[in-house]
Amino acid sequence: MKILVLNGPNLNLLGQREPETYGRATLPEIETLARDTAKRLGADLDFRQTNHEGELVGWIQGARGTADAIVINAAAFTHTSIALRDAIAAIGVPTIEIHLSNVHARESFRHHSTISAVCRGVIAGFGAHSYVLGIQAAVNIIVTRC
Amino acid sequence: MKILVLNGPNLNLLGQREPETYGRATLPEIETLARDTAKRLGADLDFRQTNHEGELVGWIQGARGTADAIVINAAAFTHTSIALRDAIAAIGVPTIEIHLSNVHARESFRHHSTISAVCRGVIAGFGAHSYVLGIQAAVNIIVTRC
Amino acid sequence: MKILVLNGPNLNLLGQREPETYGRATLPEIETLARDTAKRLGADLDFRQTNHEGELVGWIQGARGTADAIVINAAAFTHTSIALRDAIAAIGVPTIEIHLSNVHARESFRHHSTISAVCRGVIAGFGAHSYVLGIQAAVNIIVTRC
Amino acid sequence: MKILVLNGPNLNLLGQREPETYGRATLPEIETLARDTAKRLGADLDFRQTNHEGELVGWIQGARGTADAIVINAAAFTHTSIALRDAIAAIGVPTIEIHLSNVHARESFRHHSTISAVCRGVIAGFGAHSYVLGIQAAVNIIVTRC
Amino acid sequence: MKILVLNGPNLNLLGQREPETYGRATLPEIETLARDTAKRLGADLDFRQTNHEGELVGWIQGARGTADAIVINAAAFTHTSIALRDAIAAIGVPTIEIHLSNVHARESFRHHSTISAVCRGVIAGFGAHSYVLGIQAAVNIIVTRC
Amino acid sequence: MKILVLNGPNLNLLGQREPETYGRATLPEIETLARDTAKRLGADLDFRQTNHEGELVGWIQGARGTADAIVINAAAFTHTSIALRDAIAAIGVPTIEIHLSNVHARESFRHHSTISAVCRGVIAGFGAHSYVLGIQAAVNIIVTRC
Amino acid sequence: MKILVLNGPNLNLLGQREPETYGRATLPEIETLARDTAKRLGADLDFRQTNHEGELVGWIQGARGTADAIVINAAAFTHTSIALRDAIAAIGVPTIEIHLSNVHARESFRHHSTISAVCRGVIAGFGAHSYVLGIQAAVNIIVTRC
Amino acid sequence: MKILVLNGPNLNLLGQREPETYGRATLPEIETLARDTAKRLGADLDFRQTNHEGELVGWIQGARGTADAIVINAAAFTHTSIALRDAIAAIGVPTIEIHLSNVHARESFRHHSTISAVCRGVIAGFGAHSYVLGIQAAVNIIVTRC
Amino acid sequence: MKILVLNGPNLNLLGQREPETYGRATLPEIETLARDTAKRLGADLDFRQTNHEGELVGWIQGARGTADAIVINAAAFTHTSIALRDAIAAIGVPTIEIHLSNVHARESFRHHSTISAVCRGVIAGFGAHSYVLGIQAAVNIIVTRC
Amino acid sequence: MKILVLNGPNLNLLGQREPETYGRATLPEIETLARDTAKRLGADLDFRQTNHEGELVGWIQGARGTADAIVINAAAFTHTSIALRDAIAAIGVPTIEIHLSNVHARESFRHHSTISAVCRGVIAGFGAHSYVLGIQAAVNIIVTRC
Amino acid sequence: MKILVLNGPNLNLLGQREPETYGRATLPEIETLARDTAKRLGADLDFRQTNHEGELVGWIQGARGTADAIVINAAAFTHTSIALRDAIAAIGVPTIEIHLSNVHARESFRHHSTISAVCRGVIAGFGAHSYVLGIQAAVNIIVTRC
Amino acid sequence: MKILVLNGPNLNLLGQREPETYGRATLPEIETLARDTAKRLGADLDFRQTNHEGELVGWIQGARGTADAIVINAAAFTHTSIALRDAIAAIGVPTIEIHLSNVHARESFRHHSTISAVCRGVIAGFGAHSYVLGIQAAVNIIVTRC
Repeated sequence: MKILVLNGPNLNLLGQREPETYGRATLPEIETLARDTAKRLGADLDFRQTNHEGELVGWIQGARGTADAIVINAAAFTHTSIALRDAIAAIGVPTIEIHLSNVHARESFRHHSTISAVCRGVIAGFGAHSYVLGIQAAVNIIVTRC
Repeated sequence: MKILVLNGPNLNLLGQREPETYGRATLPEIETLARDTAKRLGADLDFRQTNHEGELVGWIQGARGTADAIVINAAAFTHTSIALRDAIAAIGVPTIEIHLSNVHARESFRHHSTISAVCRGVIAGFGAHSYVLGIQAAVNIIVTRC
Repeated sequence: MKILVLNGPNLNLLGQREPETYGRATLPEIETLARDTAKRLGADLDFRQTNHEGELVGWIQGARGTADAIVINAAAFTHTSIALRDAIAAIGVPTIEIHLSNVHARESFRHHSTISAVCRGVIAGFGAHSYVLGIQAAVNIIVTRC
Repeated sequence: MKILVLNGPNLNLLGQREPETYGRATLPEIETLARDTAKRLGADLDFRQTNHEGELVGWIQGARGTADAIVINAAAFTHTSIALRDAIAAIGVPTIEIHLSNVHARESFRHHSTISAVCRGVIAGFGAHSYVLGIQAAVNIIVTRC
Repeated sequence: MKILVLNGPNLNLLGQREPETYGRATLPEIETLARDTAKRLGADLDFRQTNHEGELVGWIQGARGTADAIVINAAAFTHTSIALRDAIAAIGVPTIEIHLSNVHARESFRHHSTISAVCRGVIAGFGAHSYVLGIQAAVNIIVTRC
Repeated sequence: MKILVLNGPNLNLLGQREPETYGRATLPEIETLARDTAKRLGADLDFRQTNHEGELVGWIQGARGTADAIVINAAAFTHTSIALRDAIAAIGVPTIEIHLSNVHARESFRHHSTISAVCRGVIAGFGAHSYVLGIQAAVNIIVTRC
Repeated sequence: MKILVLNGPNLNLLGQREPETYGRATLPEIETLARDTAKRLGADLDFRQTNHEGELVGWIQGARGTADAIVINAAAFTHTSIALRDAIAAIGVPTIEIHLSNVHARESFRHHSTISAVCRGVIAGFGAHSYVLGIQAAVNIIVTRC
Repeated sequence: MKILVLNGPNLNLLGQREPETYGRATLPEIETLARDTAKRLGADLDFRQTNHEGELVGWIQGARGTADAIVINAAAFTHTSIALRDAIAAIGVPTIEIHLSNVHARESFRHHSTISAVCRGVIAGFGAHSYVLGIQAAVNIIVTRC
Repeated sequence: MKILVLNGPNLNLLGQREPETYGRATLPEIETLARDTAKRLGADLDFRQTNHEGELVGWIQGARGTADAIVINAAAFTHTSIALRDAIAAIGVPTIEIHLSNVHARESFRHHSTISAVCRGVIAGFGAHSYVLGIQAAVNIIVTRC
Repeated sequence: MKILVLNGPNLNLLGQREPETYGRATLPEIETLARDTAKRLGADLDFRQTNHEGELVGWIQGARGTADAIVINAAAFTHTSIALRDAIAAIGVPTIEIHLSNVHARESFRHHSTISAVCRGVIAGFGAHSYVLGIQAAVNIIVTRC
Repeated sequence: MKILVLNGPNLNLLGQREPETYGRATLPEIETLARDTAKRLGADLDFRQTNHEGELVGWIQGARGTADAIVINAAAFTHTSIALRDAIAAIGVPTIEIHLSNVHARESFRHHSTISAVCRGVIAGFGAHSYVLGIQAAVNIIVTRC
Repeated sequence: MKILVLNGPNLNLLGQREPETYGRATLPEIETLARDTAKRLGADLDFRQTNHEGELVGWIQGARGTADAIVINAAAFTHTSIALRDAIAAIGVPTIEIHLSNVHARESFRHHSTISAVCRGVIAGFGAHSYVLGIQAAVNIIVTRC
């Protein structure tokens, strides 16, 4: 059971960047939390971050045949990238969209996501715990096959 | 640790109603699943359903001082009820919005929620498992106090 | 052959309320007209009115397995209630939307109906005769099974 | 008692054209159904079809002083023709707008009608039976003079 | 001279609920203030609160023939309820819309009121004093008959 | 000096049709008024009416090389016809848009004209006198060549 | 206790101008009514009218340190003037927006006010009595200091 | 027979200002042309220009009882001034809106006029000749009293 | 292999009409080019032009069973005609939309096509060569049957 | 080298007015800063403020032939005045738009400027230093003649 | 004669990715088809694909002086990338926009292209054959130099 | 004092690319001008250009702790990149947005900037001199610490 956790632009700054919005956990701390969750649920984790949309597209494409599910925090790309949407739609690997902050309580341009419609589900607003819930949701989808 | 799980209009029809959208689990089955989750996490559960917006408002008001968190599937009211929004904002009890279906992959009038901005977070698209994730998120908020 | 005729908020005021818009017939008079029509067509009629959206939702749910068709004048709820829409979509009983007045010749907020898309058809603008036409359409749908 | 039934563009293709949307009845079959209905109600029927907006405008103009009511299925012109609207408003003959399909359950550009506001009422979604209901509504308006 | 003062959803929480927005006065304190104002102006007061739209509609309907004016703080229903609008328009009793907070200085969805157009006037932003002004306006309308 | 005066759909009904909006003059009376104006100014008049957009397009095309100016009351086509716009733009004959009624004081869908931008100028709201002013404007353009 | 009552463009025409909308009281009569109200409440009144936005801005600026509250009927400027808004926001003197007519029951361009968000509250629709209520609200704010 | 011709902001620059848009005639030249037209038609002319909206409002108010008609080129105020609209509506003197350029062939913010709906008619696009036509239309309205 | 090439309003003016937009080729010259292309590809060509929407609808209807593909330059009707759309959707003959000019580089009202969604594909911007490409695309669809 | 620095409504309140938005410098202090900058760059400065749009229009008109450049902080008029836009476009003197605050980080109605499109450039958000930069930009334009 | 064929994100997945939308041809198969077409027409082909917007921008820039035409399937970037638009506009090499699917028959966010306005023309909806048509169009432009 | 000057996509083409819009200076010439300005003001300059959004995000992130201010010409990314916005907001280094052209005088999609709201200020329209002004503004912010 292999889960790919993908992180979009500026998430490498977590912990320092606007902690009142994104929380105080750094990305490595979140990775540790995610790995612990995955291990507890018997899943293998591949955890990555990039500021490049094209690289994110490539990673999603690479999940085809190598990962059972994707958990993605697309950050700023969430609201503008059709390329991510097309990649997710193309590969047929169940994908879960997560966000640290409650995007619906922020600026209106963060209320729309281009990828939600091609993801299985969305989890937003629980800080680092969004990753825990996302991985758990992924495992549940893989195990129940629905 | 007490969690109030509230269900809005037509959720009493679950299992029979458009199963390709909402899944095959009935509301009593979901209640059982929710109770098992709560018990496993050491929480007490109060699980209710109503077709009346006013009753839902009253239940939210009643959570003040009696519940540690609310998990709410407001169903159709999600998209139109400012009364629910005001009730949630008024009581100061952490509230988690959940949905069975991925509302963002459906009709455009389901893409907007009037209550998201006053909830802690949103979980949508995981069928009955959305309740499990919602309760878990609630417990995490209660335990970590953030 | 059983037909449920449902009336939404303020229709209990008919005859007194803005007669130039809604006509001079009272709701009891309309009920009599509707019963006569149904009797003539060999149908049984259940005729109700409520100001409560939740009660209307409950009545629609109750039609499942007990009524062959619904004729609904949702009045003000026509333009805002997604709960009614979800109830109609859920039960699979053919439903006909009717209006006394020609809603398209009135304020622009009355031009949109949240329930039309899940009803079989719409009849608007014929005063009390809209009920006669609605019942006739219902009987035709029941009899021809399409 | 004379009723003019007017049919707009492409309705001459009925029966062959997208039967899942418009039903399997051909226009001649619908004409027969309409004539039977009119005869039963003691009315004389003039039934026509054209693909030309200008011809439809001319027919509506000609109804002045020669017809007691118009039943019109303007088809595609429903959504764009202000000329039809002006003609209907100009002649003062009660006009009933009908549609075979439930236009509100189709593409959004079919949700708006330019003529509804100048018609007495609207009937949509009952297939060929929409013509029966429309003629009946017309007779009722002529007979009751309101 | 009888005045009906109606309060919509969540106003029973006043004093506790977001005092920086709604002030520190509780609803009973406001009722006392309103009663004092009415008594001083020689009017009889009927003061009620409900979280149910349907109940509010019923109370407005009941004012017909029993009250000389209505002062209504429809709270959240202000922005969404066409049923309230229709009830007010139907009964012909002069109605005054009031708000504790200055709705125009808050979220944009609070800037529009569905009922303003059928009320005599609007008073917003003066906290509990809005009730005093509303009653006074009502008395002035009753006394001057315009 | 030859001027082509073109009239769109339903203008043949003038005098009978909604006189409070369009005035009491019939189209033949307006034609007489227009001919008198033209004669007084030394111009030759060709005055036509049609309910067919295609015919109007053809008449505009025919003005090329045969008329010095066009005065057009496109009536309902004013608001929807791009074909008229393209025809006017194509032929290079100065064209003046006129309206009997003040379109800006009527329904909002009459506020926009598809042809104004390719006409020399617009005259609206002066009843039959709009034709007099339009012809005069046409003569002025022809004579001053600007 | 000093209150500045400011009147915008065209209010000098009151009594003559569209009395069905604005009432029959002239501005001098309203001034007398306002002075009586102020005197009764122990306040000093400065009552002015201008058709110049710039002059209105200057008067608002002048209130700083010289008036305890402003009651303003900005008339047509209500809907377009950001300069008034900035002036009111700049001076920190509590300001009350009033209107003779119920602006929400009129043309849609009168539904929005550029100044409401920086005023303490809004009173609209009570004719000349709006001034009485506005002054009373002003006195209440001055006296209660909130 | 007295006609007031009013000119809004920047029209004092005519002839120098963007001649390809506004023509080469200066305002004094246009005044001469207007005076000649008025004299020929037996009318008295009062011709003014101002850059101040308030002054324009005052001049319109002053027309009440002193002028039989107004011809107004409100220039930039055309698109934003509700104060002008209210003044025109208030005084009951027939008013004709004119423009030198064809505003509909220019930037989209020039397509809407706040005053058209309260004017008798609109003339646009004929350069200085728009004044001639406007005065003629005014005389026609005065003479025919309609 | 029979291909129907249809041309909408004003295309009969090609060569003379705004050559910088539409090119210098006349419609007969384009017809010759189209015939040469068809002959080279072994197809039979039927080439027509009309200014009447109704005639265009009729020609499309006539293609059913007599043509293997349609290449249509609907010109101005492209942007407004739902009747054309319905005709194309009704007949099931593969249809290719073509344009001489690059409509997306022109006025915004030319950016939307009502027929694109029911055509197989769109070719725009290549002048007379758009016809060559359109016929080639049509032949390819006929030959490959997809 | 002469530069005209123009200041719109409420800028006379600077220093006192919302210092967190506009800074603590008063307008005379800013004038001194501007004069020092101009002197350093060899330019002559004319520095003015008004609350009247008409006066601002007049000052801009007066710059024609007397000033080499204009630096304008139109304040509230920035967002609504087409008269200012027309004046700037008319005179052909290079004009630079400046703002103290970063208008794009404030209310949405401050994001649009009616004058930007006719100015050479825009400088916003640097407090009093915006004037320094604006004068410098003006000098650069005058000196480089581009 | 050198033609650069550029492919945007996710096109490397062709054949596997949603074949009902994009067809069953893989990108290498399309490249072969394109090369055959080019060879037949005497052109040299450079065929590339990338998921990186920046790389695509670089390739377009590189076409300046090295390619005679560009054929670009920008895929997801079509709808969002202004950088591509600026690059195409900057280099002056004729560019043809192509799409495999008929974008106008899909989700509404695919109906708008940011690059169409700076391309020579657009070809969409013919599957792999869109490349053949695109190359042919490119050759025609190169050869005819228009 | 270290200033990072960042340049977005296609700016490497400056001088050749549409000189009437962007000026004739090449990017190296602008770099020289910027370096001269920085040197004169005692600042160190780091000047870079990229076509990759991800690289630009990385450079902004890298400014944290290494640069005192950023001057950014984000070019096409200005209008679409939320990733840039998030990066600028995250690092807390004062950032100044500059543009060569006056974006407000160009296509409407260039009027909105996603980054303005998180920058200190904006400078647009002065060609290469925008860089001089931007650096000066940066130095002023660093020196005055506000």
